[in-house]
Amino acid sequence: MKVQKFSRQDAVMERSPGQSGDIFTGNVVDERHGGPITIGYGLWGKNQRLELTLAVDDVMIILQGRLAVSFDGTTVEAVAGDIVHMPKGTTVKIDVREETATAYVTYPHWRTAEA
Amino acid sequence: MKVQKFSRQDAVMERSPGQSGDIFTGNVVDERHGGPITIGYGLWGKNQRLELTLAVDDVMIILQGRLAVSFDGTTVEAVAGDIVHMPKGTTVKIDVREETATAYVTYPHWRTAEA
Repeated sequence: MKVQKFSRQDAVMERSPGQSGDIFTGNVVDERHGGPITIGYGLWGKNQRLELTLAVDDVMIILQGRLAVSFDGTTVEAVAGDIVHMPKGTTVKIDVREETATAYVTYPHWRTAEA
Repeated sequence: MKVQKFSRQDAVMERSPGQSGDIFTGNVVDERHGGPITIGYGLWGKNQRLELTLAVDDVMIILQGRLAVSFDGTTVEAVAGDIVHMPKGTTVKIDVREETATAYVTYPHWRTAEA
């Protein structure tokens, strides 16, 4: 594999699996590239909500906007520059306060949890 | 492990190994926490230069500022919102154009390459 630089416009955004709202993800590196991790961008529409049980370790970096992340009975607000680490097996509820852009890195490759 | 949210002020910044300039890193998640990945923040002083051979897969997300990353005879400029993926075994030269803040995720845990 070689070094690569990505910008948001390099990602092909698709509706994120398991929801019908305005939440989109686009991988720029994934299992097709032969490495151990998936890298991508996320776009989250205002007032969208997503409940998620993590099948992999997921790191979300907030690039702009604001999300509320709820877990274990608490809610934290994440803004630009913040990092949310969602280890494998955890469950989170995400409420989008403003239109938000994120970057994500997962290990191993991202997939949805089994229903 | 549990879900956690981090901000830049949560990282304890230390001079990055192998250099004596104004380049600082601070892990917020690493091998002490029992998971597979390291997560942290980096701060890069203007005009600093770092040459680096990657011992692990390293993903650098630019939060603010501007870095030039050179590899394989090419140089790319990375600005806020850009992602640089440096796979294990690759060599890069980083020239800091402006004071820059980054987030990073590595798999497996970050360490310097053997000299």
